[in-house]
Amino acid sequence: MAKVKKTPRPKAETPKGFRDYFGAEVSERAEMLSKIAGVYHHYGFEALESSAVETVEALGKFLPDVDRPNEGVFAWQEFDENDKGDWLALRYDLTAPLARVYAQHRNDLPTPYRRFAMGPVWRNEKPGPGRFRQFYQCDADTVGTASMAADAEICAMLADTLETMGIPRGDYIVRVNNRKVLNGVLEAMGLGEDQAARDNVLRTIDKFDKVGEQGVRELLGKGRLDASGAYIDGVGLSDEQAEPVVAFLTSKADDPAGTFANLRAAVGGSAIGAEGINELEQIAELLAAGGYGADRIEIDPSVVRGLGYYTGPVFEAELTFEIFDEKGRKRQFGSVAGGGRYDDLVKRFTGQAVPATGVSIGVDRLLAALREKGRIGGVATGPVVVTVMDRDRMADYQAMVAELRNAGIRAEVYLGNPKNFGNQLKYADKRNSPVAVIEGGDEKERGVVQIKDLILGAKIAQSATLEEWKERPSQFEVPRGDLVSKVREILQGQDD
Amino acid sequence: MAKVKKTPRPKAETPKGFRDYFGAEVSERAEMLSKIAGVYHHYGFEALESSAVETVEALGKFLPDVDRPNEGVFAWQEFDENDKGDWLALRYDLTAPLARVYAQHRNDLPTPYRRFAMGPVWRNEKPGPGRFRQFYQCDADTVGTASMAADAEICAMLADTLETMGIPRGDYIVRVNNRKVLNGVLEAMGLGEDQAARDNVLRTIDKFDKVGEQGVRELLGKGRLDASGAYIDGVGLSDEQAEPVVAFLTSKADDPAGTFANLRAAVGGSAIGAEGINELEQIAELLAAGGYGADRIEIDPSVVRGLGYYTGPVFEAELTFEIFDEKGRKRQFGSVAGGGRYDDLVKRFTGQAVPATGVSIGVDRLLAALREKGRIGGVATGPVVVTVMDRDRMADYQAMVAELRNAGIRAEVYLGNPKNFGNQLKYADKRNSPVAVIEGGDEKERGVVQIKDLILGAKIAQSATLEEWKERPSQFEVPRGDLVSKVREILQGQDD
Repeated sequence: MAKVKKTPRPKAETPKGFRDYFGAEVSERAEMLSKIAGVYHHYGFEALESSAVETVEALGKFLPDVDRPNEGVFAWQEFDENDKGDWLALRYDLTAPLARVYAQHRNDLPTPYRRFAMGPVWRNEKPGPGRFRQFYQCDADTVGTASMAADAEICAMLADTLETMGIPRGDYIVRVNNRKVLNGVLEAMGLGEDQAARDNVLRTIDKFDKVGEQGVRELLGKGRLDASGAYIDGVGLSDEQAEPVVAFLTSKADDPAGTFANLRAAVGGSAIGAEGINELEQIAELLAAGGYGADRIEIDPSVVRGLGYYTGPVFEAELTFEIFDEKGRKRQFGSVAGGGRYDDLVKRFTGQAVPATGVSIGVDRLLAALREKGRIGGVATGPVVVTVMDRDRMADYQAMVAELRNAGIRAEVYLGNPKNFGNQLKYADKRNSPVAVIEGGDEKERGVVQIKDLILGAKIAQSATLEEWKERPSQFEVPRGDLVSKVREILQGQDD
Repeated sequence: MAKVKKTPRPKAETPKGFRDYFGAEVSERAEMLSKIAGVYHHYGFEALESSAVETVEALGKFLPDVDRPNEGVFAWQEFDENDKGDWLALRYDLTAPLARVYAQHRNDLPTPYRRFAMGPVWRNEKPGPGRFRQFYQCDADTVGTASMAADAEICAMLADTLETMGIPRGDYIVRVNNRKVLNGVLEAMGLGEDQAARDNVLRTIDKFDKVGEQGVRELLGKGRLDASGAYIDGVGLSDEQAEPVVAFLTSKADDPAGTFANLRAAVGGSAIGAEGINELEQIAELLAAGGYGADRIEIDPSVVRGLGYYTGPVFEAELTFEIFDEKGRKRQFGSVAGGGRYDDLVKRFTGQAVPATGVSIGVDRLLAALREKGRIGGVATGPVVVTVMDRDRMADYQAMVAELRNAGIRAEVYLGNPKNFGNQLKYADKRNSPVAVIEGGDEKERGVVQIKDLILGAKIAQSATLEEWKERPSQFEVPRGDLVSKVREILQGQDD
């Protein structure tokens, strides 16, 4: 007999690099974003939700290439009989859509326009461990003002946000620098026009955290033996030429005035450098006026973010409490947010330069930090489970959950096959239920219910002696009328 | 001289069929979804957020076709050198991903699995007025139980959700029917196997709302002249054959017992019909036990939803208050949510049939309803605006907003070019600001600030006589130290 060929079953899998989020993972993120939105709103920022899909033209990251139109983004062509449909793509960040929105609606939007946006973005990249192709971003930007008050405000808002999230003062620092100061340093070195040398110097500056002052001197000069024994070629500058970089990187003093003096020395006669320092001074003054001292926000010349992108002030929020990394070594938690001032956001659309500044919070990083601090991620308690002893009396059990819910207690009736009672308790266990309610025929007749404290029960099962077991029963028989009050009493006891 | 060719500027536009949401539109929806999530959670449902992107294979709506792979969905092929990359697509609803998630994680999930999900879905359809290609869905489903208690619970939850949203009892009704009863009716007509005739009858049933009992009789028989004068061919049944359909459609009695008796008559000897009626009786009993009477949830045989899809109970939440439609005619607001029981959700993946039931709330419809009821969508008040009279004293103004914010008052400093004071007031107007704060050099010297009640000011400007204008000043000079208390007093006065 010929076999009937079966259609192969589809694989039940997310695409590579995507994942699902369950229960508390979802609600904790939603709650965090809602609190952040609250702070942003308090500062006068307005919500914006643009669509996930943009034209490739508006995103402007690349020109569609026939061979590989979705390099970096997820893109596809709109159907059109003549194959002339628009190329569409999933947004890869929240800034490119802001540029499009501002250009499109600028006549209806207030100027300056303060907006916040939160939601998923997509990257068509090779996924790796812990690296996903869909993740959340949470941005606030002010478009249409060159005033340093906009930058200062965003730094203050960042500090407020972290404290609202439950990161105490002292456990974080917002650090501020200015890209113009760095340009001033390069100018003072006589590298104003030499792009290759500039890039080399910038790469070296980026290594300051790791190699320190002496390492930077070596890398700017002849080169350096790294920890693995390999020799790294230097940039080939003279000691004299390298000096402004070193002076810049080590310019942080005990007070802002000292830092500014050191920076002035580092940039020498550079006009752009002086302008950058003036801007930093303005920011420091504005923050001081708002009551934000160096314990929360500090000027720090070693902050070097997204070198190519920013045109003025740059900022970064760092969490300073210590955690153990995967190798068991202590280290600071590190950066959870960053941003800065950027120009030409809207210029590609309108031809008009529009100054803007903004910040982006790393949603997953901040969630991880809150877990480290124990602010979220305790084991989420499940609902009270009303078990089913008699499947014909489902209405009785339904009445019980309705009573519990009306009293504000999260509750559900067991909806699986009730035949095996053990399965019901296993279910309650899997649900992390704090309490199970039991009413068999005998209880029904006597007008009582059994209420099981599952948390206490689990504790006793783990560690109690027989005496303790007897003394501290984890199951209580109460009159049916006392169902709600007894359940509430047990839940309150568990919270203590 | 040859002209330099300019690169054309990109268009600042959303793709066709997509739109942006601003300010209150975003926050009102977020708040609504958060409240709905609260009710679902209270009922023991757990949040699930699957990724926006699925493999086309897992979505299972269609097989990719080389000519037109994105019919109905937005789809694209993963890059692969041999052109064998997976086809990926944006989800078109939240149910298909639930099926994939349940099949993938079924060993780790509790059974039954109650989950809720909310988020955007995408449809690759021709956009039209008010029809968008990205919109929100908000679903709750219970997977893995055939118990009618699951269906009853979802109906109760739907009623609770609407009341939590601010739709008062009496302004909504959850209506319940059962697909099996309809199948029983078709069986009683002797159409059990004749698919073409069944489809014709089902289409006619769907028109009952519009054409009434007599219209249905005509359409099932010889045909009917419609309102436009066109003749609609009938199904060609005899009066006797058509009778069960009419009996079914008109079976709703004053009380459930009467309705059930009428339905039994309509399905005659059909076993599947009797089963459906039994299921409805169970649901009615369970709801009554939970305190949900016919004022909130009723059995209504005229509910006919998604005929091909559902296999058992179907439900629909309808808002019964009246609104005026676009032609100025009064009509009921109508449906805002619907759902029912469906099988084979997971079977395509695992080969095992898994019963499931669920509901989907029409997010935009419910938002529109809440606007109609005045629950949301009053004009959102903007922040207090601290104006800038002297650009060198930005620190003073920054200190003011910090004080206001620390006192819990939403406030911002004007960040545009301060030269033209009129522009600052225009800006405050565009922002819907309730209050503007003014401190010029003269005020600074005298230690006072001017506080302008912009709401009162606008009212006076519209309607007041000169006397009223004088009597009710909308601008107040107070000592600088009273800034916060005076602003708060004005804001409270505006709320009254």
